[in-house]
Amino acid sequence: MNARKNFDKSLEELQNKMTEMNEMTIEAFEKAFTAFKSQDIELALKVIDEDSAIDNLDHEINQFAVWLIAKEQPFATDLRRIIASLKITSDIERIADFAVNIAKATAKIGKTESLINLTALEQMKETSIHMLKKAVTAFINEDIVLAKEVAELDDLVDDNYAVTYNNITEFLKTHPEETTQLVQLLFINRYLERTADHITNIAESAAYLVKGKIYDLNH
Amino acid sequence: MNARKNFDKSLEELQNKMTEMNEMTIEAFEKAFTAFKSQDIELALKVIDEDSAIDNLDHEINQFAVWLIAKEQPFATDLRRIIASLKITSDIERIADFAVNIAKATAKIGKTESLINLTALEQMKETSIHMLKKAVTAFINEDIVLAKEVAELDDLVDDNYAVTYNNITEFLKTHPEETTQLVQLLFINRYLERTADHITNIAESAAYLVKGKIYDLNH
Repeated sequence: MNARKNFDKSLEELQNKMTEMNEMTIEAFEKAFTAFKSQDIELALKVIDEDSAIDNLDHEINQFAVWLIAKEQPFATDLRRIIASLKITSDIERIADFAVNIAKATAKIGKTESLINLTALEQMKETSIHMLKKAVTAFINEDIVLAKEVAELDDLVDDNYAVTYNNITEFLKTHPEETTQLVQLLFINRYLERTADHITNIAESAAYLVKGKIYDLNH
Repeated sequence: MNARKNFDKSLEELQNKMTEMNEMTIEAFEKAFTAFKSQDIELALKVIDEDSAIDNLDHEINQFAVWLIAKEQPFATDLRRIIASLKITSDIERIADFAVNIAKATAKIGKTESLINLTALEQMKETSIHMLKKAVTAFINEDIVLAKEVAELDDLVDDNYAVTYNNITEFLKTHPEETTQLVQLLFINRYLERTADHITNIAESAAYLVKGKIYDLNH
């Protein structure tokens, strides 16, 4: 096998690890939200426990990327692709942390009448997962159009964040007995808004790969 | 000048840019907190405006690091130092974002009787800035003892976070008319707790440089 073929194989391996990490993160996110919706504390604790597997894969990807740079001494697009992969896995790792945060908030809320209907949290979760799949595909296929779509969907999450924030704080004023749950709902709202921001960062990394400069799609 | 000297000069330039970014971030953080404490909305807006300079420097450092890897094809410790610099500037950039978040929360609170005395926020801010200076010094001097001290200080911030969270939610139950401010105080509490986590990440990057493997000082 020639050197280029070897290198392409390594790049593909890096990409596969990243895709695997993304799938684990999406699963953790879905699980955390299911636990939150159904007040399933046991499932929430499982999400918290399982996060270390995602962290381990993140470390593995980091070390593989450094090894690849040292071994292959890549230039131009190849180097940009590896650096972008490092940035993307760092964003995915943070998204997995938000899944853990949602699970922790679920444990704090405990078993009580759910006030989720006051919020747009489920819609935000759906939009975020849709965005995350698009963003990683945008990177793998070097598709700048898809990357821009991700940034547009982020506006939708931001709108839902504002609506949810207002609904919860208004309700809080007249229902102090629900403070614990409402405060956790405010935090979950924030986690989802931040998740969408990190996904927008991934789309920016995809754009950086395509255009060779850093785009700021958030603004 | 020989190649090694040239490379050392470039590494020093990278480090200087990082130190400059850190100093700008500490200044933004202090300003944001002053604005918050004194309810100085104008100063808060200034912090938000000035964040783009920090973002620009972050992009500049990223591009410089990629250029340096491509040009010098570094191995072992040299490569690890550059990769660690990239991770650290990414953490510093997020800390600067938390300064912006505190400034935005300040604008939302507006001019009203401050409830900061319910909280340990000022102590958390002081500890965080102390940690940040230590963490960056740990990286520059490759000082693992200093890196471990940062992780210990993080526990102090976590304790203050818990106390502040309890004080605010208890007060909220009997003072629904203060909901807007109290919710923002809860968010600021969270931003400071997250800031300390990112600083612990910086200490981990310092440890990674020294030991050549990734430490997880958070756990």
